[in-house]
Amino acid sequence: MSLRSQYCGQVTEAQMGQTVSLCGWVHRRRDHGGVIFIDLRDREGLVQVVCDPDRAAMFATAEGLRNEFCVQVQGLVRPRPAGTENEGMTSGKIEVLCHDITVLNASVTPPFQLDDDNLSETTRLTHRVLDLRRPQMQHNLKLRYRVAMAVRRFLDGQGFIDIETPMLTKSTPEGARDYLVPSRVHDGEFFALPQSPQLFKQMLMVAGFDRYYQITKCFRDEDLRADRQPEFTQIDCETSFLNEQEIRDLFETMIRGVFKDVLDIELATPYPVMTYAEAMARFGSDKPDLRVKMEFTELTDVMADVDFKVFSGPATTPGGRVVALRVPGGGEMSRSEIDAYTEFVKIYGAKGLAWIKVNDVSKGRDGLQSPIVKNLHDAAITAVLQRSGAQNGDLLFFGADKSKVVADAIGALRVKIGHSEFGKSHGLFENVWKPLWVVDFPMFEFDEDNQRWAAVHHPFTAPKDGHEELMDTAPEKCIAKAYDMVLNGWEIGGGSVRIHRAEVQSKVFSALKIGPDEARAKFGFLLDALQYGAPPHGGIAFGLDRIVTMMTGAQSIRDVIAFPKTQRAQCLLTNAPSPVDEKQLKELHIRLRNPQPVA
Amino acid sequence: MSLRSQYCGQVTEAQMGQTVSLCGWVHRRRDHGGVIFIDLRDREGLVQVVCDPDRAAMFATAEGLRNEFCVQVQGLVRPRPAGTENEGMTSGKIEVLCHDITVLNASVTPPFQLDDDNLSETTRLTHRVLDLRRPQMQHNLKLRYRVAMAVRRFLDGQGFIDIETPMLTKSTPEGARDYLVPSRVHDGEFFALPQSPQLFKQMLMVAGFDRYYQITKCFRDEDLRADRQPEFTQIDCETSFLNEQEIRDLFETMIRGVFKDVLDIELATPYPVMTYAEAMARFGSDKPDLRVKMEFTELTDVMADVDFKVFSGPATTPGGRVVALRVPGGGEMSRSEIDAYTEFVKIYGAKGLAWIKVNDVSKGRDGLQSPIVKNLHDAAITAVLQRSGAQNGDLLFFGADKSKVVADAIGALRVKIGHSEFGKSHGLFENVWKPLWVVDFPMFEFDEDNQRWAAVHHPFTAPKDGHEELMDTAPEKCIAKAYDMVLNGWEIGGGSVRIHRAEVQSKVFSALKIGPDEARAKFGFLLDALQYGAPPHGGIAFGLDRIVTMMTGAQSIRDVIAFPKTQRAQCLLTNAPSPVDEKQLKELHIRLRNPQPVA
Repeated sequence: MSLRSQYCGQVTEAQMGQTVSLCGWVHRRRDHGGVIFIDLRDREGLVQVVCDPDRAAMFATAEGLRNEFCVQVQGLVRPRPAGTENEGMTSGKIEVLCHDITVLNASVTPPFQLDDDNLSETTRLTHRVLDLRRPQMQHNLKLRYRVAMAVRRFLDGQGFIDIETPMLTKSTPEGARDYLVPSRVHDGEFFALPQSPQLFKQMLMVAGFDRYYQITKCFRDEDLRADRQPEFTQIDCETSFLNEQEIRDLFETMIRGVFKDVLDIELATPYPVMTYAEAMARFGSDKPDLRVKMEFTELTDVMADVDFKVFSGPATTPGGRVVALRVPGGGEMSRSEIDAYTEFVKIYGAKGLAWIKVNDVSKGRDGLQSPIVKNLHDAAITAVLQRSGAQNGDLLFFGADKSKVVADAIGALRVKIGHSEFGKSHGLFENVWKPLWVVDFPMFEFDEDNQRWAAVHHPFTAPKDGHEELMDTAPEKCIAKAYDMVLNGWEIGGGSVRIHRAEVQSKVFSALKIGPDEARAKFGFLLDALQYGAPPHGGIAFGLDRIVTMMTGAQSIRDVIAFPKTQRAQCLLTNAPSPVDEKQLKELHIRLRNPQPVA
Repeated sequence: MSLRSQYCGQVTEAQMGQTVSLCGWVHRRRDHGGVIFIDLRDREGLVQVVCDPDRAAMFATAEGLRNEFCVQVQGLVRPRPAGTENEGMTSGKIEVLCHDITVLNASVTPPFQLDDDNLSETTRLTHRVLDLRRPQMQHNLKLRYRVAMAVRRFLDGQGFIDIETPMLTKSTPEGARDYLVPSRVHDGEFFALPQSPQLFKQMLMVAGFDRYYQITKCFRDEDLRADRQPEFTQIDCETSFLNEQEIRDLFETMIRGVFKDVLDIELATPYPVMTYAEAMARFGSDKPDLRVKMEFTELTDVMADVDFKVFSGPATTPGGRVVALRVPGGGEMSRSEIDAYTEFVKIYGAKGLAWIKVNDVSKGRDGLQSPIVKNLHDAAITAVLQRSGAQNGDLLFFGADKSKVVADAIGALRVKIGHSEFGKSHGLFENVWKPLWVVDFPMFEFDEDNQRWAAVHHPFTAPKDGHEELMDTAPEKCIAKAYDMVLNGWEIGGGSVRIHRAEVQSKVFSALKIGPDEARAKFGFLLDALQYGAPPHGGIAFGLDRIVTMMTGAQSIRDVIAFPKTQRAQCLLTNAPSPVDEKQLKELHIRLRNPQPVA
């Protein structure tokens, strides 16, 4: 005899008049008019169980039940009394008249109520097992599974093969820090946990597997931010013989399908495509949030000769930039609101935040209210108003600094205002899903710290056709076949066409000042592989944690991971990491630098 | 324009008369009668491409092709000339008349021929990318994927949810050695890579997820044998509210479905079920290979008083055992064959291998040929002949020693003879798939080294109903709700019903001499979780690598893993593990015990 005939949350009118057997947890117990009502919970939801006192033994058991007891209930499905139906739940039209209860396992009193929404994260992660019983967490992890399975079904249908790549692999210290694993067999040597399967998936293409994917853990020992974890999950894909457009089309279709399957949402067909240059010009970001209905107005050219150093300085300095951000209706912002935004942009390195309120655009200079208007000549003012399309009642903010500072500060300001109550109430924010492709990334960016060119994507990214020569002559102009999928201001996936010719790969290493010996020591296996008829190939990797965080509307990536680490990289449930035995260290040929006193 | 219209290996008569565009590798080039024939290969197989000299530019390109060049071919599908069809290949009835060839990437001469079947493993693993191009390796990894996907489809249909558990977790030094990962943030502390997600999956059951699975990497830092890898892949499953029989039925159905889907093989319905005690009695193994048609004959009781110390000693010593193994037709074995088997059983600790040839069973003692017959009294000889069912021409081998030595030695001998040419030619080996369940394992075995009881399965396994008390009074009699799925002599999966009550779990820890403090330090999170209404639950884990090795008939587990480690736990392709920078060690608060001289 099975303990269970169906899930609690799935008992409906279809079982009316039948005897069912349910297993679950006491979510709530109410005693009302001599009758005991139990909300019985399992992963599929709640069902109301009614215990009448006329079955004395059963009723005595029911009286002993407390929250989170695990029980089996057998009973008759009957309609709820008229007026007590609950349209909000699947089982809301029925209740189960209890015939028998078996306590499968009692529970001590939980440290918190499952429906308490104000728990600290420390409490939740310490008592993660109970926290995971909360319907929201059940929903999040079930949705995560549905996303992963929708991805697998799609890729399976497209001929992609899941091939596992090693977790114990080689340390290549660049980019993020590696997690290292000492080797017992090889004294003084270490494995590294993979930051991504990048090189292995390329080798699988060279090996002729044609289409590969993997939903796999990657590891980065970085200081953690709200959206980072030491281990995170990547949907990692690679294909041979497709060009950039074909690759993008394929994975755009995949993500569109996932949103349709899991959330019944239709994403734009096709996604807008924007070059990196355009995204930076219009939004100051390579992952623009297109829900925000504001754009930059370029003013660098007209500010060169104004009598205002704050603008003319950056406008006449190479790498400097001046832009405006028009905030429709922003004229009603108070001085204190403007001051708060001025403080906000300082986080991004801006030294201040000039502004103009547009009272009456027809009056030109005289219709403007601002501390800076007097410093701008007529041509500048005309350009500001015409290019921005300013209307009466608008506010214009200005950024003037090095390009990067302007992009970061005014780009963040744009998003901040767009997401604010002001933005939402003034039509500056459209609450929809706004995917796009950002393409044509530069190959290289100059690394000021190390005074050399670094790869924007990674050193295995192919330059655009005809750009090979630029690697030597003008690296800053060299464009990569790289693309990011962006959704509502988040990069959810990034990829590129890879270099498939050994001589081009060597050229990139050379541009990055990675000498032949270093290249061979670190990537010899890749260079070797490219010599044996490597096919044209490319791919993409999606951040599963991030996609699911967005789809569930979770506050944190930690709400879509069953057993996450804290921001200090600890597991509060198991207390990992933890000290280990000296014997273990000895076997691994290592010792602590700062031996701990024995407890 | 796409580079490819279909896979090489999938061009058939259906495309007759059409122009196709194919991408692949030059598998072989033959020049014959002024025409060039190319076998073009991709992951789906080969197609024959014919290059006529009448297209001069194309022909010149074809003349320049060498093995493993990556090319695109456009051409017309036409019938092969009568008499040259190849029934063995999908594309065997057609050929492609080449119109155009583009070299996508040239290849230097490979270090070996892909169809060389005599490559050393070192060569293969060093040049793994080329090795993976071999059709057999392509087949193996594709089959592996199909197995994993069949598992996912089945479990999805049964309501199982894939939930990821941590890779960076807590070290619990027992069982196998952990791989450790030093923590940068927490000086002197370490993560461990999981030996299995056992505790996490149990916590997911306590959290109410009801049905969990994961196809995931597990790690054991053990000395490697032919079928072991430092990282291996487990199909890990757990369910709530099902009893042992229901769990076994479910996963038996899963594996039967996988064999049907992937190999079109029907496994027995239902599997035979055998207790541990019966398996040890009849086959000397808890994973008997039922393809071998020989069994043990129990003789301990009748050998107690024979005038032959070799038998009477073990027969009268507690924990000793005497058995015979009847080898039908074995009478024709030569003395040197018997001597070889005598050497063989010494590997397993046997001191010798007594034998009797049965020349004429009707003559009793006089019909037997053996150095030991004179030492056995009539009752013993009668028992030997009757119980074993000996026939004229048979050979009887004897094992007499401690039970474990007898089981290991005669169990291995049984398999050795069964798999030998002799066994196969004498009907002692049935070449079929023979699955079974082995159940009712003991809870505990005595660990002689540490002089205490140890868990046979793991300490979270539930005792059989009514056996809880035996944990204190007679641990050796306590039976567990543990089960192994065995196939052709391999354990392919193992699992158990778990303990879901904290007080039973404490009792087991106590029987294992794990004190309350140690239990709390190591497993406090599990004990805590069990207090909050943990549901009855149980599960199983399958070894994916091993299942795929068996299904492909591969020689080694390394042939079903894309990038395996050697038996010395090295990756010959990437040279992992490898030395790391002092800076990295410093950040991790560790140093080498034996610093290496700087190269």
